[in-house]
Amino acid sequence: MSEQVKIGIIMGSNSDWPTMQAAARVLEDFGVPYEARVVSAHRTPDLMFEYAETARGRGLKAIIAGAGGAAHLPGMVAAKTTLPVLGVPVQSRALSGQDSLLSIVQMPKGVPVATFAIGEAGAANAALFAVALLANDDAALADKLAEFRQRQTDTVLAMALSPLDQG
Amino acid sequence: MSEQVKIGIIMGSNSDWPTMQAAARVLEDFGVPYEARVVSAHRTPDLMFEYAETARGRGLKAIIAGAGGAAHLPGMVAAKTTLPVLGVPVQSRALSGQDSLLSIVQMPKGVPVATFAIGEAGAANAALFAVALLANDDAALADKLAEFRQRQTDTVLAMALSPLDQG
Amino acid sequence: MSEQVKIGIIMGSNSDWPTMQAAARVLEDFGVPYEARVVSAHRTPDLMFEYAETARGRGLKAIIAGAGGAAHLPGMVAAKTTLPVLGVPVQSRALSGQDSLLSIVQMPKGVPVATFAIGEAGAANAALFAVALLANDDAALADKLAEFRQRQTDTVLAMALSPLDQG
Amino acid sequence: MSEQVKIGIIMGSNSDWPTMQAAARVLEDFGVPYEARVVSAHRTPDLMFEYAETARGRGLKAIIAGAGGAAHLPGMVAAKTTLPVLGVPVQSRALSGQDSLLSIVQMPKGVPVATFAIGEAGAANAALFAVALLANDDAALADKLAEFRQRQTDTVLAMALSPLDQG
Amino acid sequence: MSEQVKIGIIMGSNSDWPTMQAAARVLEDFGVPYEARVVSAHRTPDLMFEYAETARGRGLKAIIAGAGGAAHLPGMVAAKTTLPVLGVPVQSRALSGQDSLLSIVQMPKGVPVATFAIGEAGAANAALFAVALLANDDAALADKLAEFRQRQTDTVLAMALSPLDQG
Amino acid sequence: MSEQVKIGIIMGSNSDWPTMQAAARVLEDFGVPYEARVVSAHRTPDLMFEYAETARGRGLKAIIAGAGGAAHLPGMVAAKTTLPVLGVPVQSRALSGQDSLLSIVQMPKGVPVATFAIGEAGAANAALFAVALLANDDAALADKLAEFRQRQTDTVLAMALSPLDQG
Amino acid sequence: MSEQVKIGIIMGSNSDWPTMQAAARVLEDFGVPYEARVVSAHRTPDLMFEYAETARGRGLKAIIAGAGGAAHLPGMVAAKTTLPVLGVPVQSRALSGQDSLLSIVQMPKGVPVATFAIGEAGAANAALFAVALLANDDAALADKLAEFRQRQTDTVLAMALSPLDQG
Amino acid sequence: MSEQVKIGIIMGSNSDWPTMQAAARVLEDFGVPYEARVVSAHRTPDLMFEYAETARGRGLKAIIAGAGGAAHLPGMVAAKTTLPVLGVPVQSRALSGQDSLLSIVQMPKGVPVATFAIGEAGAANAALFAVALLANDDAALADKLAEFRQRQTDTVLAMALSPLDQG
Repeated sequence: MSEQVKIGIIMGSNSDWPTMQAAARVLEDFGVPYEARVVSAHRTPDLMFEYAETARGRGLKAIIAGAGGAAHLPGMVAAKTTLPVLGVPVQSRALSGQDSLLSIVQMPKGVPVATFAIGEAGAANAALFAVALLANDDAALADKLAEFRQRQTDTVLAMALSPLDQG
Repeated sequence: MSEQVKIGIIMGSNSDWPTMQAAARVLEDFGVPYEARVVSAHRTPDLMFEYAETARGRGLKAIIAGAGGAAHLPGMVAAKTTLPVLGVPVQSRALSGQDSLLSIVQMPKGVPVATFAIGEAGAANAALFAVALLANDDAALADKLAEFRQRQTDTVLAMALSPLDQG
Repeated sequence: MSEQVKIGIIMGSNSDWPTMQAAARVLEDFGVPYEARVVSAHRTPDLMFEYAETARGRGLKAIIAGAGGAAHLPGMVAAKTTLPVLGVPVQSRALSGQDSLLSIVQMPKGVPVATFAIGEAGAANAALFAVALLANDDAALADKLAEFRQRQTDTVLAMALSPLDQG
Repeated sequence: MSEQVKIGIIMGSNSDWPTMQAAARVLEDFGVPYEARVVSAHRTPDLMFEYAETARGRGLKAIIAGAGGAAHLPGMVAAKTTLPVLGVPVQSRALSGQDSLLSIVQMPKGVPVATFAIGEAGAANAALFAVALLANDDAALADKLAEFRQRQTDTVLAMALSPLDQG
Repeated sequence: MSEQVKIGIIMGSNSDWPTMQAAARVLEDFGVPYEARVVSAHRTPDLMFEYAETARGRGLKAIIAGAGGAAHLPGMVAAKTTLPVLGVPVQSRALSGQDSLLSIVQMPKGVPVATFAIGEAGAANAALFAVALLANDDAALADKLAEFRQRQTDTVLAMALSPLDQG
Repeated sequence: MSEQVKIGIIMGSNSDWPTMQAAARVLEDFGVPYEARVVSAHRTPDLMFEYAETARGRGLKAIIAGAGGAAHLPGMVAAKTTLPVLGVPVQSRALSGQDSLLSIVQMPKGVPVATFAIGEAGAANAALFAVALLANDDAALADKLAEFRQRQTDTVLAMALSPLDQG
Repeated sequence: MSEQVKIGIIMGSNSDWPTMQAAARVLEDFGVPYEARVVSAHRTPDLMFEYAETARGRGLKAIIAGAGGAAHLPGMVAAKTTLPVLGVPVQSRALSGQDSLLSIVQMPKGVPVATFAIGEAGAANAALFAVALLANDDAALADKLAEFRQRQTDTVLAMALSPLDQG
Repeated sequence: MSEQVKIGIIMGSNSDWPTMQAAARVLEDFGVPYEARVVSAHRTPDLMFEYAETARGRGLKAIIAGAGGAAHLPGMVAAKTTLPVLGVPVQSRALSGQDSLLSIVQMPKGVPVATFAIGEAGAANAALFAVALLANDDAALADKLAEFRQRQTDTVLAMALSPLDQG
C-alpha cells in the first residue's frame, strides 16, 4: 500500500472487525488505498481526536467509522474534522443495533454523519459510498463503479431467468 | 443561478419543503448552486428514474432526497445512479419518522444511501455533508466549511461564557 | 404451466425464496397458475418497472412482492401498475422485519400496497388473499377456498377434541 | 344508492369515521356503491359475525374494516368470510397506531387481512385497492383507475415544474 | 376430574401448549379443576363464541386465553362473556411477543382483558391470579395461596443466605 | 359509603387521578363500595406495604393500582398481598406509557399483576374487571354487569343503524 | 458562589437549559455549590475535553451532563475523567428522548455513565443523586437529604389523607 | 473479607448472577470489599426493605441492584435508603432487556436510580462507577482507577498499532 491512503476505516474494537471487514473488501476490490485501525471513542479519546484532526492533512478523503451500542465514534470524529464521515452501526447484543443506529444517525444540526444500515451490509455500503465520493473526480473509478453496478444487475438478472428451486 | 447546478434537492411532495428548505438554505449560505424539485417515487416514478439517470450527465455531484413514511425516494434514486445519494427522513405523522428512517437507512448491500437525522436537522446536515463532498476538490469551499465550523464553535463558546438564564 | 399465469410472485433475492415459497405452495394447492421470479428494486430497477408495466397486459391479476430491510419492491411495483399489489415483509437480520414491515405498509395516499404478516405466514396469507380476489369471479375457486377454510377449521376442531399432551 | 353495494366499510366506533371517511370519499369518486356502518368487534360481536357471514351473499366484493388499539375487527371479520378483507389501523391515542397496526397485520397463517397504512392515508388506500380488485373484471373501472393515477402523476409533475416557495 | 371445572385454559393452537402448560401446572398444584383446550379465534370462530357464551353456565369462574401475533382470542372471548378473562401473550417468532402483548392489552373501554407477561411466566401468573380470584370466596384456597407465597419467599431467603457461586 | 369497601383504588400521585377517576366512576355506576387514595411506591413505601398487608383484613376483594413511568406500585402491592391486583399504566410524558406498561405487565413468575390498557380506557376496564370478579359470587352484580354490556351493545347497534355523518 | 464548586452541570445547548435547570434548582435547595455551562460535544469538542480533564483538579466531585438526540456529551466526558458522570437524556423532538436515552445508557464496558430518566425528572434526580454522593462524606448533607426525603414522604402522606377531587 | 463491606450487590434471583458477577469481579480487582446477595423485590419484599433500611448503618456506601423484566428492585431499594443506588437492567428473554431498562431508568422525580447498560457491560460499569464514588475520598483508589483507565487505553492503543486480521 505505497499509494496515498484515501479512506480511513476505524472501529472501536477488534470485535467490530468482522463487520467492518466488509468495507475493507469493497475498497480492495475497487483498488482504493485505505487503512483500517482500532480507534475507540471512549477508551482512546485522544487518539480519536488526533486521528480526526490529522486525517485531512494526511490526504484522507473520507473516514468510515463503525461502532456499536452508545456509538459515539462516528459523531465525535465528525466533530473534529470537516472530512466526510460515514457511520456504520454495528449490531449490538441486547438491542440488535437499534441503539447503535440512533446514536449515530440522530446528530444535531451542524455536524453531519452519513449513516448506513446496521451491520455488514452497512459497512459494505459505506465503502461503496466512499467509492462514489472519490469517483466524482476520478473518471476511471466512476467507470469501475458503473461496471460493478452493472455486474450486480447482471447477477440478479441471471437469477431472474433461472428457475427458483421449488424444493 | 447561471452557474452549473451541483446538488439536486428532491422530495416527494410540497409538504416536505418546510423540512428540506433547511438543506437549501445551507447550500445558499455556502454559495453552492443547487436545484430543488418535487419528484415522487410513487406518483412520478418515471420522472424519478429519468432524474436519477440524467443527474450525472447534467453535472450534479450529489442528490439530497427527502421522504416520509414508506420513504422509497432516496433508495430508488440510488438504484438508478452511481452519484452519492443523501437521504433525509421526513418526520411522519403517526410514527414520527421512525418509518421514514428505517425505510431509508436499511438499504441492502450494493446500493448505498447516506442517511441523516429525522427532520430539519437531518436536511441541514445532508447539505453540510454535500458541501464536505465538494470541498474535497475545492479548497475555497473547504475553507468556507472550516470557517462555518469555527463560527459554530465560537457561537457555542460564547454561550459557554455567558451565564445561563436562571429565570 | 400452459395455462394463463394469473399471479406473479416476485422477490428481491434468492434468499427470500424460503419465505416466499409458502405463497407458491398455496397457489399450487389451489391450482392457480403463477410465476415466481427474482426481481430486485435496487439492483434491477428497470426490470422491476418493466415487470410492473407489462403485468396487466400479460394477464396477471395480482402481484405478490416480498422484500426485507428497506423493502421498496412492493411499493415501487405498485407505483407502476394499477393491479393489486400484495406486499410480504421478509424477516430481516438485525430488526426482525420491523424495518421491512414499515417500509411496505406505510405507503402514502394514492398508491396502495396490501400488506401481510412478517415472514412465511405473511407469504402464505398473501397467496390466500390472491385466491380470494380471483374467487370473486370464479365460483369454483370460491368453493375451493371455502373448502380449504372448512378443512382448516376441522383440523383445529379435531385438536380441540383431543386431549392436550400434559407431559 | 339503488345499485348493488359492492364494498362494505365498517369501523368499531363513530370516532373512527373521520379516518374511514377517506375510504368512503374514494369510493364515491369512483362511483363504486358502498355502505358504511359501525360494527364493533368487542361490543357487537354477534352483529360482526352476522355481517361477515352474510356479506358474500349480499353481493359484497370486499370489506374495508378500520379499528384502533387492540384492533380485532378486521381479523375477526376475515375469520367469518372468504371475501377479501382490507384492514385499516386507526391512529390510537397512546401508541399512535402501532398497536392497531400490529393487531391487524400479524394474522396467523390461514386467515389473511390485507393491511394498509396507519390513519387516513391507509383508509384512502384501502379504498383504492378495493377499486383495483373490482377493476380486474370491470374495464371501465380499470380505465377510471388508470386516469386517476395519471391525474395524480400530472399533479405532482405540475408541482415538479413550478418553483418551490423559498420563503 | 369429576369435580366442577372452574377455570378454562384455551389457546389458539397446539403450538401454544408448551407456554400455556405453565398455567395448567399451577392449577394442578393448587388442586383447582380446570380444562385445557385448543380454541382458535380465526380458525374456529364459532367454537370460540360458543365456548365463551356457555362458560358461565358451565360453572367456569374465569378463562385463561393464550395467543400470539395478532392475538385476538382473549379479547373476543371477553366480548362474549362477562366472566373474568385472563390473557397471556405467547412469544411470537418475528416480534418476540410485542405484537401479542399489544393485541391483548390495548382493549377498548368496555370490554376488559386482564393481561399478563409474555410467555411462560405470564401463563403461570395468569393461573396464580385465577387462584387469587377463587380464593376470595374459598378460605382453604386462600390459605394454600398464602402458603405458596410463603414457600416462594422462603426459597429466595434460602438463596439469600447461601453464598453465590463465584466461579 | 357506610358499606364495606370492596375495592381499593390507589395511585402514585394526584396527577394520576384524571386517569384513575375512570375506574372510580365505573365502580360508582355499579354501586360497588370503593376507596381512592394516593399511595406512592417510591415516596411512601411503608404506607404502600401497610396498605397491601392490611387490605385483605379490611375486607377488600381487589386493588386497582395506577402508575406511570417506572411504575412499581402495582407489582410491589402484589408482592405484599395475595389479593388480586389490577394494574393500570398511566400515560407518561416522554414515552406515552410504553414504560408504564412494560413496568407493570412484565412481572416475574410467582407474583401476578393483571394489566389493562394504557390510560383512561385501562382504568375503566380495570374497574369493570373488578366488577366481574365480585360478580362471580354476587348474582345481582352479575345481572348488572350483563345489563351494562347489553346497553353497551345496544348503543353501538343504534349507531350501526343510524347513518354516518358524511360531512 | 465563593465556595468551592462541587458539581458541574453541562449541556449541549441553551435549549437544554429548561430541562437541566431542574438539576440546578435541586443543588441550590441543598446548598451545594455548582456551576452550569453550555459545553457541546459536537460543536466545542476541545472545550469538552478540557472541561473533563480539568474537572477533578478544579475540585469537582461529579459532572451532570444533559444532551438530546445522538447524545454524546455524557459518554465523551466520562471518557476523559474518572469523576462520576451523571447523564440526563433530554427529550428530543422526533423520538421523544428514546434516542437520547440509548445514546447515553448503552456505554461499553470500561467507561460508565450513570443514566437518569428522560427530561426534567431525570435532571432533578441526577442532582439528588449527586447530593447522595456528596452525603457519603458529609453528615450534614446526609441529614438534609434524609429530611428532604421525609418531607417528600409527608407531602404524599398528606395527599393520601385528603380526599381526591372527585369532580 | 474482614474489612468493612462498602458495596452491596443484590439481585432478584440466582439466574442474574452470571450478569452481576461482572460487577463483583471489578470490585475484587480494585480491592473494594463487597457483599453479593439474592434479594427479590417481589418474592422477599420485607428482606428488601430491611436490606435497604440498614445499609447505611452497616457502612455501605452504595448498592448495585440488578433485575430483569418488570425490574422493581433498584427503584424500591432507592425508595428506602438515601444511599446511592446503581441499577443494572438484566437482559430479559422476550424483550431483550428493554423492559428491564425502562423499569429501572424512568424513575419519578424525587427518588433517583443511576442506571447502566443492559447486561454484563452495565454490571461491570456500575461497579466501576461505584469505585469512582469511593475514589472521591480515597486517593489511593483514585490512583488505581486512573491506572485501570490508562491500562485500558494502552490495550486499545496496542490494538490500534497491530494490524487487523484481514483473514
